[in-house]
Amino acid sequence: MKTGASRGEIDGVVDRARSLGLNVQLNLGTDKTVVALLGSNTGQLSTDIFAVLPGVEGVTRIMKPYKLASREFKAEDSLVSIDGIEIGAKRVVVMAGPCAVESEGQLMEVARAVKESGASILRGGAFKPRTSPFSFQGLQKVGLELLAKAKERLDMPVITEVVDPHDVNLVSSYADILQVGSRNMQNFALLTNIGRSNCPVVLKRGYSCTITEWLTAADYLLAEGNNQVILCERGIRTFEDSVRFSLDISSIPVIKRFSHLPVIVDPSHAAGHYSLVPAIARAAIAAGADGLLIEVHPNPKEALVDGLQSLTPSDFARLMEELRQIARCVGRYI
Amino acid sequence: MKTGASRGEIDGVVDRARSLGLNVQLNLGTDKTVVALLGSNTGQLSTDIFAVLPGVEGVTRIMKPYKLASREFKAEDSLVSIDGIEIGAKRVVVMAGPCAVESEGQLMEVARAVKESGASILRGGAFKPRTSPFSFQGLQKVGLELLAKAKERLDMPVITEVVDPHDVNLVSSYADILQVGSRNMQNFALLTNIGRSNCPVVLKRGYSCTITEWLTAADYLLAEGNNQVILCERGIRTFEDSVRFSLDISSIPVIKRFSHLPVIVDPSHAAGHYSLVPAIARAAIAAGADGLLIEVHPNPKEALVDGLQSLTPSDFARLMEELRQIARCVGRYI
Amino acid sequence: MKTGASRGEIDGVVDRARSLGLNVQLNLGTDKTVVALLGSNTGQLSTDIFAVLPGVEGVTRIMKPYKLASREFKAEDSLVSIDGIEIGAKRVVVMAGPCAVESEGQLMEVARAVKESGASILRGGAFKPRTSPFSFQGLQKVGLELLAKAKERLDMPVITEVVDPHDVNLVSSYADILQVGSRNMQNFALLTNIGRSNCPVVLKRGYSCTITEWLTAADYLLAEGNNQVILCERGIRTFEDSVRFSLDISSIPVIKRFSHLPVIVDPSHAAGHYSLVPAIARAAIAAGADGLLIEVHPNPKEALVDGLQSLTPSDFARLMEELRQIARCVGRYI
Amino acid sequence: MKTGASRGEIDGVVDRARSLGLNVQLNLGTDKTVVALLGSNTGQLSTDIFAVLPGVEGVTRIMKPYKLASREFKAEDSLVSIDGIEIGAKRVVVMAGPCAVESEGQLMEVARAVKESGASILRGGAFKPRTSPFSFQGLQKVGLELLAKAKERLDMPVITEVVDPHDVNLVSSYADILQVGSRNMQNFALLTNIGRSNCPVVLKRGYSCTITEWLTAADYLLAEGNNQVILCERGIRTFEDSVRFSLDISSIPVIKRFSHLPVIVDPSHAAGHYSLVPAIARAAIAAGADGLLIEVHPNPKEALVDGLQSLTPSDFARLMEELRQIARCVGRYI
Repeated sequence: MKTGASRGEIDGVVDRARSLGLNVQLNLGTDKTVVALLGSNTGQLSTDIFAVLPGVEGVTRIMKPYKLASREFKAEDSLVSIDGIEIGAKRVVVMAGPCAVESEGQLMEVARAVKESGASILRGGAFKPRTSPFSFQGLQKVGLELLAKAKERLDMPVITEVVDPHDVNLVSSYADILQVGSRNMQNFALLTNIGRSNCPVVLKRGYSCTITEWLTAADYLLAEGNNQVILCERGIRTFEDSVRFSLDISSIPVIKRFSHLPVIVDPSHAAGHYSLVPAIARAAIAAGADGLLIEVHPNPKEALVDGLQSLTPSDFARLMEELRQIARCVGRYI
Repeated sequence: MKTGASRGEIDGVVDRARSLGLNVQLNLGTDKTVVALLGSNTGQLSTDIFAVLPGVEGVTRIMKPYKLASREFKAEDSLVSIDGIEIGAKRVVVMAGPCAVESEGQLMEVARAVKESGASILRGGAFKPRTSPFSFQGLQKVGLELLAKAKERLDMPVITEVVDPHDVNLVSSYADILQVGSRNMQNFALLTNIGRSNCPVVLKRGYSCTITEWLTAADYLLAEGNNQVILCERGIRTFEDSVRFSLDISSIPVIKRFSHLPVIVDPSHAAGHYSLVPAIARAAIAAGADGLLIEVHPNPKEALVDGLQSLTPSDFARLMEELRQIARCVGRYI
Repeated sequence: MKTGASRGEIDGVVDRARSLGLNVQLNLGTDKTVVALLGSNTGQLSTDIFAVLPGVEGVTRIMKPYKLASREFKAEDSLVSIDGIEIGAKRVVVMAGPCAVESEGQLMEVARAVKESGASILRGGAFKPRTSPFSFQGLQKVGLELLAKAKERLDMPVITEVVDPHDVNLVSSYADILQVGSRNMQNFALLTNIGRSNCPVVLKRGYSCTITEWLTAADYLLAEGNNQVILCERGIRTFEDSVRFSLDISSIPVIKRFSHLPVIVDPSHAAGHYSLVPAIARAAIAAGADGLLIEVHPNPKEALVDGLQSLTPSDFARLMEELRQIARCVGRYI
Repeated sequence: MKTGASRGEIDGVVDRARSLGLNVQLNLGTDKTVVALLGSNTGQLSTDIFAVLPGVEGVTRIMKPYKLASREFKAEDSLVSIDGIEIGAKRVVVMAGPCAVESEGQLMEVARAVKESGASILRGGAFKPRTSPFSFQGLQKVGLELLAKAKERLDMPVITEVVDPHDVNLVSSYADILQVGSRNMQNFALLTNIGRSNCPVVLKRGYSCTITEWLTAADYLLAEGNNQVILCERGIRTFEDSVRFSLDISSIPVIKRFSHLPVIVDPSHAAGHYSLVPAIARAAIAAGADGLLIEVHPNPKEALVDGLQSLTPSDFARLMEELRQIARCVGRYI
């Protein structure tokens, strides 16, 4: 309450809280009174309900707004299992492939190469959200069919992005894991539909969203009954302009502290430049990430999308060797 | 090019550029060579195409990535006309109403009040994108029907948000202006569908998007043939924590310099607190905004969404008096 | 406390608080216990003292860390008086002049022009903090002497920046107002010395400091007994790259709400481009700023520092006309 | 140049450039003309000189503003040698100790513990820059004397912060390495004095400074003839609020690409919480950092400053074991 708030104003807050089924306790400080609101769902109440009342100076949240994604809700680590590959367990899972599926030849060449180097899941974009309408938008349905072909030929689960809420069924009929891109982290129509699909999903962090908002977005998926949620840190927007996005390495231990969900890292989109990818990938494993999502292209010079951040198959093979060693240092393997 | 780039590397860049139909000029500096790429569509080419080539240090864009939204494409100001109300002309257009449509009584009460104070367009949310799945999600179709009723009764055009690409037809059959929310500024599936609808649209700035990205998103709408585009500044995410978002006041003159599109300001979502709304609203008009989008609620204490940032009808009436005076100082009227 | 914190852990926190002279109250929630710490100086205690104790999940500050700069400490607006010019009263005070003092001719020409247009205080940099060691660093002592000459000839108080704690006496023997630049807002050695000088001071906001940190820095000046403190908003660093800094227009009403100190705005350093200065200056007055600090140069093309953001004398005269009208709309004058 | 710039305007730019000794080349594009300015010092020229000229749309820098710190200026890695300990070589150098020197007992206890665990340099603050004037400001001269005692007794070089330009001689008479804190990265008076001292220096990154600004600040030290410069990444300010600062892990490979200077990481100030320090420290070594600066306190619960981010001696010992393994994976040792 504001300094000098009247008895009536304090009572107003207390009454409003009680009308919502909350318990109340008054902390009478030297300068001001603090009204503590107690209840099992205070994290899910809007603070505005109380902030608008007369005499209130501000409302400070103690409980987090997310619930189902929190470690308090579920203490033990969650595992997501895809064709027998467990994400969140001892094995560090590497998903690799081209940013965009461009042709059968390109996809098969990459798929074979990354599998040989130890990647266990194939990534490839069919629907591409692009900042400019004049850019290549992906092969769409044809891209999905090529991914399905690669999956069958190489016996490797595939992950691909879905951008339209009405494409969830279509995409999940081809893919083993749906990917929600950074720009769609708060596309609630999309999240709700994926939540209902029960298809494993990688939820990329919105590039300007806090970890709290990220876990609250995960609640959208979990609340619909889909427990197969994998988080993916991919860099946040800051003032630094030497990289596309600043990878938030601290988010790994923070997520491990506050959530039971597995978390992987996409070093490619953060860096925006192939030369920075290996250092970030090594750091991610050292910090405790459960996996990586890495872009690999047989010929980055000819890539239709994001060629600059793609590794060549031979660079990827070399990186995998380094990552295997780092994984061992933190008690894991690839 | 990198210092010491070889003749062959420079030729590689030149050849790639020519293969894309670009002209090329070499600037031989003391320390390094710069290859200038010339052509009418360089703004729409990905810089990666060249950045991946051997010997290249970096690619610097001189042309902007947006085209149709730029003042170079269209020199004179664009006007958007809604039932005879022109946005982008001498009149400063005020859109006001509740954050969410809650009931017929609430909506009619606000609508009457804001109209009386001089607002010319009624706002009200039917589909509400909420960060938590446990929050009120809007009255949806019922909300649209109430908006249509208010429009008819008060002879006032209405604006409301659309969040799902497949709801564009539905929502535009009730509303005069579609609103694209901040979290959907880069929801390209949504933008494409609205672009095809030919319904006037308010494109809110993504809270972490640059002005360049905002204008590039407007290109998605314009490229589909919808020219009725109004931009709306609503605050950006920064480190400052005393407000919900930091209103970027400079964006008004910057937009006026680089684009022909009208731009309005939403002081309510930026401030997050009713006490800050009047100062920001006055500043917006003084800086040259073409309109405002303001939240008004008959009883903010009972609002289901965002009560803290809503003005009461009497506060709104007082603000309109102040805004009328400021508008005159900049050669306009309300 | 963490969910499941033991009785002993809670007692540990209570004991630590009592040993510091604080009162304590326990809020026993459904899921966790919150220990409320009560006392008159809790805002000045480090939260770490409690955050490190076993069983503590986190510490949330309710009281602000600043004290002397707060409106709770002093309810009525503070005025700063310089040679009879009051800052913080009805008159909007405009300080104008060149970024750097370059020569007697340049300074006198600008001084005369800005005075004629209605500026009441002359600004000019003698010591210039520059990001590169290879840039012009200011005329230093010669610049101070020229400022003193201009002050005498035109009967106009002068403001100039001080960058070294040991130059406070020197600079204040020439200038009427000391300026603390954005990069020095947390240069505590400098603040302490200025606090002891009793010379009026403009404290620019650190371009990456929150309003809370800004007011806490003001406490350094006030705690030493210098009450002549004027705050100056000059833009913050964000991801937006079309301006040098994003002017935080909301900071004006926020400062007015939480502090008794006067606040002025520097539109020139925020914009970084002369074409944006008028819109930002008008917005600042409309939002309630107590003054402006504007760069004017007789010939921006020849300016040694920051020419691009300087207005010409005739542009400045035109702007002053606009500002006079805006000031009247908010019940003030220039 | 703007679209449609006149021949006279283009000539104006060309003439100005030639008057500064630059070469010029015109790139005549389809839509606009670009004037390329060529010369060996264009990075050190202000862009404003040209941006203010009539007909100019904008100035884009191709050359970096820093020079001496760049890898183009010096291709091979720089080493800084302190009492035979080389920073920037194969050995990863760990500096550890308390945030603030509090007493002889506290300092000796930590010093002995960190030495035993493998730290090679002792850190400890005597002058503490604090955001609030009401916080503990350090033992100052007494603290320096205690550091000198510890150095002698344990035969371990010491690093400590200097905050006042006039204390450089004093502090460097006790310490082996001077530390420039984040808030002083652009305190140019301080940098100039340290540059003249020839004492090894750790230059912490300003928490809101780009890597380009950081390297330009290093130029201040190098330009005065001090080549013993070590950079230190310690986290940047972002919107994320679960940590004090977001450690910019990408800055390590970026610095290695663009500069020859060694770079270390301070995980303690970035994290702000002891539980996050080990993950960030491991990530830093995996990403290629040349060393670490870690806070250790014998009894964090009683620490006068930053207790929450301090490791206990036993946590530190455990972390050193992990770091030794990670170092080996990247071809180094501790």
